[in-house]
Amino acid sequence: MLFYIVHFMTHHIQLAYYYLFDSTTICVTIMKMTPEEFRHQKCQTLQGVDLSRKGCIDDAIKLLVEVINNRDEFVTTSSCSGRVILFCENIAEGHKKGCKWLFTSHDSVDIQELINSVDPAEGNLVFKYEPLILHIRCFTLDHAKLLHTCALEAGFRNSGITLGKHGKVMLAVRSCMGLEVPISENGELLVSHKYLEFLVRKANEKVEENQSRTERLLTCVKNAFEVNT
Amino acid sequence: MLFYIVHFMTHHIQLAYYYLFDSTTICVTIMKMTPEEFRHQKCQTLQGVDLSRKGCIDDAIKLLVEVINNRDEFVTTSSCSGRVILFCENIAEGHKKGCKWLFTSHDSVDIQELINSVDPAEGNLVFKYEPLILHIRCFTLDHAKLLHTCALEAGFRNSGITLGKHGKVMLAVRSCMGLEVPISENGELLVSHKYLEFLVRKANEKVEENQSRTERLLTCVKNAFEVNT
Repeated sequence: MLFYIVHFMTHHIQLAYYYLFDSTTICVTIMKMTPEEFRHQKCQTLQGVDLSRKGCIDDAIKLLVEVINNRDEFVTTSSCSGRVILFCENIAEGHKKGCKWLFTSHDSVDIQELINSVDPAEGNLVFKYEPLILHIRCFTLDHAKLLHTCALEAGFRNSGITLGKHGKVMLAVRSCMGLEVPISENGELLVSHKYLEFLVRKANEKVEENQSRTERLLTCVKNAFEVNT
Repeated sequence: MLFYIVHFMTHHIQLAYYYLFDSTTICVTIMKMTPEEFRHQKCQTLQGVDLSRKGCIDDAIKLLVEVINNRDEFVTTSSCSGRVILFCENIAEGHKKGCKWLFTSHDSVDIQELINSVDPAEGNLVFKYEPLILHIRCFTLDHAKLLHTCALEAGFRNSGITLGKHGKVMLAVRSCMGLEVPISENGELLVSHKYLEFLVRKANEKVEENQSRTERLLTCVKNAFEVNT
């Protein structure tokens, strides 16, 4: 085994990375993918078709996404700045996919706008707030760890790393601050307008909290990149 | 650098692990922590005081936790099988910590029991369903990847790996299937009893879905351990 490793290193030493985490573990990663190959795949990702419903990056996180994508070692693969949605549950399929959206906002919500969208005849309605979600492909585990630390510092406690096929390292930035409220069934609205007003107020509080976390994340990421330049 | 690595290897080769993920990356991990040291820390974790409110492992996941902890390379550090809770938001602190719980159930909920617990005088009430959460410390990244794959297969899509201090590798198993419904404010209940009945029915559906995902996870983990024995 020693021979195998050393043999491998002499051929690939120009691609070798080593890191030391907290001096208890030393990990030597010898990657078949060169930085150039990663950059090539990154270009393909950035040039690909945006498959989201909206089809573009939300204004509130354009700068954050830009700061991350400006670094060779990272590429965002999907993002949502956070949103308030009103949708119909698709019971037939048993999951959200293919469900109809009646209302969506990436910013604070106007109560009248929401109430105008409430139509129990459309199906079983759910009012939901989803905070920022960001998926970032990273060149190495080291790079993923750097951004993961930023995400945790900024309050995105449900973030985590995924090791995918073909050695892909992904970081998902997620928060645990949600709101998921079913409000109608079989064509009948089960809550009052007063309650809907209350819900919108609650959602708007979360929109604000999400915005300050997102700002903290941008600051953390900028600082981390400065230190690691 | 080559010298440094080879020097290190000759002294620590008995601790060397190598893995190949999808034949695109080769990673050689030379760990200062031996399997014996990990086992020692695992024992300390298992003998430690259970700091959860309940103080013990939920019945529904006792077998799953046992299967995982029976392997030398894993130790669960916290777990919840999934639960329906009714709690007061602690506005003063701005987060859930220290909030008062009025009702909690790890199984399907009886509507009358819940209604008996609803007391808006206690504070701003929130009805919530939280699916299974499991934190597992893993010996190496390889081991974390093995269980992460099981979690994703079983439907726990928000699972992720965290690289902590002192080389600790943690896996968090999380689902995205939630329910979070604020129901009172300033001492006033803002929803009807009929709506509470509806909510309990919705929560019970999620309890069931969570149970089948948990069963799938147990099957996946058992299979993975059999293949990797």
